Amino acid sequence: MGTVRKALGLLDILAHPDSRYGLTEMARLSGFDKATTRRLLLELKADGFVEQDEGTRAYLLGPALLMLGRAREERFPFFKIAQPTVRALAESSGETSHVSEYVSGAMASICAQESDKSNRVIVQVGERLPLHATASGLAYLAASMDAFVDAALRKPLPQFSANTITDPDALWTILSNARSRGYVECDQLRADGVFSVGAAIVSPKGAPIGAVAVALPSMRADAEKIAEIGALTAAAATEISTRLFGKTGGTQRIRKI
Amino acid sequence: MGTVRKALGLLDILAHPDSRYGLTEMARLSGFDKATTRRLLLELKADGFVEQDEGTRAYLLGPALLMLGRAREERFPFFKIAQPTVRALAESSGETSHVSEYVSGAMASICAQESDKSNRVIVQVGERLPLHATASGLAYLAASMDAFVDAALRKPLPQFSANTITDPDALWTILSNARSRGYVECDQLRADGVFSVGAAIVSPKGAPIGAVAVALPSMRADAEKIAEIGALTAAAATEISTRLFGKTGGTQRIRKI
Repeated sequence: MGTVRKALGLLDILAHPDSRYGLTEMARLSGFDKATTRRLLLELKADGFVEQDEGTRAYLLGPALLMLGRAREERFPFFKIAQPTVRALAESSGETSHVSEYVSGAMASICAQESDKSNRVIVQVGERLPLHATASGLAYLAASMDAFVDAALRKPLPQFSANTITDPDALWTILSNARSRGYVECDQLRADGVFSVGAAIVSPKGAPIGAVAVALPSMRADAEKIAEIGALTAAAATEISTRLFGKTGGTQRIRKI
Repeated sequence: MGTVRKALGLLDILAHPDSRYGLTEMARLSGFDKATTRRLLLELKADGFVEQDEGTRAYLLGPALLMLGRAREERFPFFKIAQPTVRALAESSGETSHVSEYVSGAMASICAQESDKSNRVIVQVGERLPLHATASGLAYLAASMDAFVDAALRKPLPQFSANTITDPDALWTILSNARSRGYVECDQLRADGVFSVGAAIVSPKGAPIGAVAVALPSMRADAEKIAEIGALTAAAATEISTRLFGKTGGTQRIRKI
């Protein structure tokens, strides 16, 4: 792996919502030795991509990322456009709703609105959601070219929960159902007790760029509720696609599998 | 310069509001040879830090930056907190107002609200404002430790306009006035015809983190108007500091020079 990608990988570790890591933990989590980790962090720090907490010395994402993130958002206002829809979806579904963008092999959560119920699912901005084990990832795959899906499912598929499916054929069945239904159902594939429903955000040419999803405690996920949330989620994905691209891009491509 | 910093420098070029650059221009602007530039861009692209326009092949800031920027903002909600104040300041002053954050040697603009006058100053998110030639930068310096200011003024100070001041002693005079007044006046130091007024956003411990500024055509910048805008800008800086840190951090430190 090139030096640049090593450094960018450190930023990914720091994007995790719980990250409060010092040098030793950063080295352990990245798999680089301590000297390398320190050198990369120093380079990132010099340009404001990371900073250090004055008290704990923990590394944090730096101000340059806010500036660059804002500059990206100015050109392609995904967050701004998705946010009102995510809020409305959380209200209409009564459950936690969120939008993620595809970033190099995973879905990066950029916008979330929690349910106001005391028993609810938490989704945090900065979380990276694996393609094969989340409604967001599976919705993205369902809207992708078959060759892309095949390549994604040939990679190692980690087991996150008792229900995680790691068999590509079984995952293709879920994707096939999603393609005919317009949304994905994800029954505790990543975490026990969490059911989620997702639909892809798609460009007018049919390329998926992200997903909108609703996540709820599986005890509330009966068939009727899921069908209702599925319809709301698919409509939200269409709304975001349309507002992003100026015309409808929301119909997910149906491809033979 | 390390490989990582070279790559991060390419992101900085892409943050410029007008950037629509192909490989040749990226190489020219970065000063790296074409092979190096291409290799760095490929590494950045693999992790979603840059992407390429399908039509023009121009390089663009990628989705990973939005995700990381949002993750940074979740921990330290600078943009969210600054935005309403910036809008109110644009309204009360009648002029373009903006907030910037200090990022490794310059002020990075993260939030701007234009005046609704037809003759107005444009400030774009992603612009990097030099410390010695902008109200934002000088406000930041005025709130900084003397040793930091000395170091900043020992670096090369480029000439941007006829009025740009590159003599450290003359700049210290401006900073001294700013420290006693609570805001900085910047008379066409970066661009002919642009007057700006800035005040630092300061932590409770007195460390500056950014600045709020108002920029107007210098033909409208009479003494009375500037005094009025100066008071509004200083109040806006205090408001943002207080909302960011939970208690007042807005009084700029007065230090002997």
